[in-house]
Amino acid sequence: MRRVAIVGAGMTAFKEHFALGIKDLIPMAVSEMVASVDKGLDRSDIQAAWFGELTTTDGFPSGILADSCDLLDIPVTRVENACATGNDAVRNATFAVASGAFDVALVVGADKVRESSSRSTFWEWAKLTRDVAWDYPVGLVAPANFALHAARYLHESPATREHLAMVAVKNHKHALPNPKAQLRYEITVEQVLSAPMVVAPFGLLDCTPQSDGAAALLIVAEDVVDRYTDHPVWVRGVGLGLDRVMHQHKADLTTFPATVKAAKAAYAMAGIGPAEIDLAEVHDCFSAVELISYEDLGFTERFGAAAYVESGATTVGGARPVNASGGLKAKGHPPGATGVAQCVELFEQLRGEASNQVDGATTALAHNIGGPTAVSAVTVLSSAKG
Amino acid sequence: MRRVAIVGAGMTAFKEHFALGIKDLIPMAVSEMVASVDKGLDRSDIQAAWFGELTTTDGFPSGILADSCDLLDIPVTRVENACATGNDAVRNATFAVASGAFDVALVVGADKVRESSSRSTFWEWAKLTRDVAWDYPVGLVAPANFALHAARYLHESPATREHLAMVAVKNHKHALPNPKAQLRYEITVEQVLSAPMVVAPFGLLDCTPQSDGAAALLIVAEDVVDRYTDHPVWVRGVGLGLDRVMHQHKADLTTFPATVKAAKAAYAMAGIGPAEIDLAEVHDCFSAVELISYEDLGFTERFGAAAYVESGATTVGGARPVNASGGLKAKGHPPGATGVAQCVELFEQLRGEASNQVDGATTALAHNIGGPTAVSAVTVLSSAKG
Repeated sequence: MRRVAIVGAGMTAFKEHFALGIKDLIPMAVSEMVASVDKGLDRSDIQAAWFGELTTTDGFPSGILADSCDLLDIPVTRVENACATGNDAVRNATFAVASGAFDVALVVGADKVRESSSRSTFWEWAKLTRDVAWDYPVGLVAPANFALHAARYLHESPATREHLAMVAVKNHKHALPNPKAQLRYEITVEQVLSAPMVVAPFGLLDCTPQSDGAAALLIVAEDVVDRYTDHPVWVRGVGLGLDRVMHQHKADLTTFPATVKAAKAAYAMAGIGPAEIDLAEVHDCFSAVELISYEDLGFTERFGAAAYVESGATTVGGARPVNASGGLKAKGHPPGATGVAQCVELFEQLRGEASNQVDGATTALAHNIGGPTAVSAVTVLSSAKG
Repeated sequence: MRRVAIVGAGMTAFKEHFALGIKDLIPMAVSEMVASVDKGLDRSDIQAAWFGELTTTDGFPSGILADSCDLLDIPVTRVENACATGNDAVRNATFAVASGAFDVALVVGADKVRESSSRSTFWEWAKLTRDVAWDYPVGLVAPANFALHAARYLHESPATREHLAMVAVKNHKHALPNPKAQLRYEITVEQVLSAPMVVAPFGLLDCTPQSDGAAALLIVAEDVVDRYTDHPVWVRGVGLGLDRVMHQHKADLTTFPATVKAAKAAYAMAGIGPAEIDLAEVHDCFSAVELISYEDLGFTERFGAAAYVESGATTVGGARPVNASGGLKAKGHPPGATGVAQCVELFEQLRGEASNQVDGATTALAHNIGGPTAVSAVTVLSSAKG
């Protein structure tokens, strides 16, 4: 299999972009990506594109990407996989470049969620990403369905609501130096615990905000990497895993089998294990999801996540920083863009250019989970070709 | 690039399946595909899946495929590209298998459009596949936007409404022996011309029906073809092309640049030209679209389509039969399934097993166009490895 590397990356700020549409956000991210390519990129070099988009209501997604970036002469495929959309778009582009069909591919993730201060695409999005006949009518939209997992996890593991709060506090702190982050202010454990309840055990500060934004990557074949940079970031592994959609079919709510499968596939392709991961961007749509994912990704043992976060291991300065960007919790979460933006952050980290730089990191992991925990995508990146 | 072949194919009947949902239709198509594999298929051989789905409202598409077929241990990517979804799903699976990531991949296309006799997903579908700010509010949903092209085509070319009618008459005739087809009755040119007007120049019989259905293919690497069959059908070329979404941006309504680009890419990959195509399944959502596509695919010269259809060349028994299955017009059009079902038909044709068999064909082409003519996908298949 031909090796593939990322040689350019860019993203918009994640925030409530009330004055901008997806047709504005996409070209902003692509332009920043183009400017990031060390030795320059002629846009006519781009041979194909993959577009991760989940929930925007502006119309035909592939066409909107082609039109808004004036990329009318290349094929554009929309990939949709609930909140794993972004890293699955990276995965599909990786396969196409590895196959030899293309040498230079664009990956874009974008979503426009906030239509006004009182209106978002949340309900359309919720409907698309779960079972409409069963889970949706009983109210199992994102906060509620993840809360089922979190409540059981708190019951079975040593974790407490304080441990959930530590995730949120850490990620807010990490977002402070990130100019692209939506929530750049510190919070305390006490504030998290006393915030208005959304759905037990999640208070308002356990939850990601709703965000608009776009992110873009340039993925190229090993044969042409030198044309663009002397500091590529290699796509060492990609993995996608699924699990049953409906919650009554999930045998154990304290683990996400989709993540376990996705991580296994990505680690196998990369030829490494979790011990080699120096830092990670983990899908922290709700605080408990980051804790459970530590275990599913193999960062710590089962029910070891509470002690792990408490130890400071996942704080910048610790052994394996998680969500140095601020994560979904504080950087924001436009669902189609999120996974792609995780790879933008890790591209910068592995090149020593991040806003909240983790020193000495060579190998990193990006992780999404969505579709009521029914799908996960994992990408392993490294400054070493391997 | 590693060669890739289709070794199994199956589909449901296309019709108004009022009593069935997409969770019923998908496993029906997959089971027929499994049964079609000459030397047998153990479902655990399937390593990954691509799912083309456009408009169903049942919820999380990738998860529904995995759940309904009990394929929980493989990755499933949903591809969406308006009415080019089916052939783009084939294209993405082809790249992944060609890359070496997988040896055995499943491609499924499905949509549940007809919810009841008075209700379909047409308006959701129309919204997803065009520009919501401009074309949609002025009424440019599918019949109207294609009618703009057809009206201009009738004005500039020698074609008349009679020539459009000949397409519908031919495709209804072709559907007669096809047990999977929705409209299995003959019609006359006079009936087409006197049918109630939908939007000029399209009367009711110029238009595809709305349909429910699913189709499935098994795509494998050349290394393992022999394990499954001695009569594979090779995926010789895949191509995807885009054009501007909004009609005010289209410079010439008498051609579809997306098709020209998709065909160019697929022919280049196959190393052949249109002269080598023995039969084709062409996207005849409206009668005129088949005529314009003859030209864009290189089957005849510009403005030569009227004479071409009149000559009988595209009727079974002619030099290059088009839509021997009945096409979208008479076989039916569940949008996510359509392109995959075209490949099911061509798989059977190239193995001599089709319901309306074209004798002696070795190389065939499948073609979709959608997203108000903003996207096209083309697949070239052959019984010869090339």
